[in-house]
Amino acid sequence: MELWLNDRIEGQTSSLKVLKVLHLERSDYQEIAVVLTENHGKVLVLNGAVQLSEKDEAFYHEMLVHVPMFTHPSPKKVLVIGGGDGGAVREVFKHPQVERVVMVEIDKRVVDVCREFFPEVSSALSDPRLELLFEDGVKFVRETKESFDVVLVDSTDPYDFAEQLFSKEFFDSVYRILGSDGVCCSQTENPFIMGKLIGRVQNYLGELFKFKTLYWAVVPTYPGGLWTFSLGSKSVDPINFRRDSRVKTRVYSPDLHRAVINFSLFWEV
Amino acid sequence: MELWLNDRIEGQTSSLKVLKVLHLERSDYQEIAVVLTENHGKVLVLNGAVQLSEKDEAFYHEMLVHVPMFTHPSPKKVLVIGGGDGGAVREVFKHPQVERVVMVEIDKRVVDVCREFFPEVSSALSDPRLELLFEDGVKFVRETKESFDVVLVDSTDPYDFAEQLFSKEFFDSVYRILGSDGVCCSQTENPFIMGKLIGRVQNYLGELFKFKTLYWAVVPTYPGGLWTFSLGSKSVDPINFRRDSRVKTRVYSPDLHRAVINFSLFWEV
Repeated sequence: MELWLNDRIEGQTSSLKVLKVLHLERSDYQEIAVVLTENHGKVLVLNGAVQLSEKDEAFYHEMLVHVPMFTHPSPKKVLVIGGGDGGAVREVFKHPQVERVVMVEIDKRVVDVCREFFPEVSSALSDPRLELLFEDGVKFVRETKESFDVVLVDSTDPYDFAEQLFSKEFFDSVYRILGSDGVCCSQTENPFIMGKLIGRVQNYLGELFKFKTLYWAVVPTYPGGLWTFSLGSKSVDPINFRRDSRVKTRVYSPDLHRAVINFSLFWEV
Repeated sequence: MELWLNDRIEGQTSSLKVLKVLHLERSDYQEIAVVLTENHGKVLVLNGAVQLSEKDEAFYHEMLVHVPMFTHPSPKKVLVIGGGDGGAVREVFKHPQVERVVMVEIDKRVVDVCREFFPEVSSALSDPRLELLFEDGVKFVRETKESFDVVLVDSTDPYDFAEQLFSKEFFDSVYRILGSDGVCCSQTENPFIMGKLIGRVQNYLGELFKFKTLYWAVVPTYPGGLWTFSLGSKSVDPINFRRDSRVKTRVYSPDLHRAVINFSLFWEV
């Protein structure tokens, strides 16, 4: 018998051959699965959608985090919405000036499962500079009195409880809680399939921020392989980003930063 | 009824939803199909493997062609092995110093079908500077007396008649027919699946050329989305490439050139 995990988005499916289902549960929010695949090691699957694989998670996490972190002139306080696997937080802590990270994940079970099955991804969740909250990210940004330098939105697909993370109201709140040099960045899905969503988010950012950009990354285990991120910046143009050789990366580089930003023209073709 | 095209490599499958099968034939060499997909327009499929889609073919063709073309100090004579759709030749002719291109495609039917269904990709095949030969590329490089500045290998997967395009003997021949600043470049498949093939080709290039590199591109309709190219250069380090603003590209940029070369360390991890 062959087992295949089919991760389907509109009109395109990415499938990974599964050697073993290591974990499967239904939490209060979603179905959480961990499968062992033939080529990509262990893979985290939420509601049937691949979130990360051991082999290629660096492609996603490094690009989500370092483009906005290097755009901010001195990111000390960082908010991560979602990102229950801990990969985004791990990348944030590579920046030596970071003093405090708040991570707001709605589903504690995702964190528990990732601590068990993906220790190399989730290890930074034990950092004493991290405050880990299990609550709704939309509610958090609406109500918090705290201010942040960088806000990263590492969400699942824009359905169900994650839908509000792509709303105008949410980005209004994010803008409000960002400091004067504040930068925010959200994953905004596959450009060939989710063009309308991307356009909407880009418009929200354009209305709020002095600078906005769409940039791309390759994520080999996501359907289509090509993924986008939407970034808003209050004072610094993302092309005028910092360099810091102390931040060790495998995928992100200053060259790649310059190469992938301002992607908006191409995906509209 | 839903029709899906499943493009399967070892342990990973990329599937596109098909609205209509526009063409299907068996040539002397392979099955040739053109399908209309929901998200990527028309797609060329050879022996079941996606070769190009209207929507994203620039990602593949620009990266295959411009990294080696800009590495060569003045590419005037170019050989393309395979590439029956004409996309590689179209990109080569963007370089104004090109005087002569020889394209050696084993299967005339691929060219005929692409002229009919992909006129925007195949249009450059009518350029008077192009000599189009329908024969075995391995035999051509073994026997030709002509010398080239750049040799591009735009092949199908390394099976059957295309297998020899990844052999030591083939690269020996390519080296022999390259001029003193000669550069060659081959598509070398998905790094997660075909690591052994990539390692072998990189070794061949390392034995022959002063410089060799592995670089990556994102090709959204190929399984895994991440693709590799193997480049050998007789005199110029691929990091010391030319710029030429007359060459208009949508995906390739000098920043991306710098970002994607020297990928070898990462894919071995």
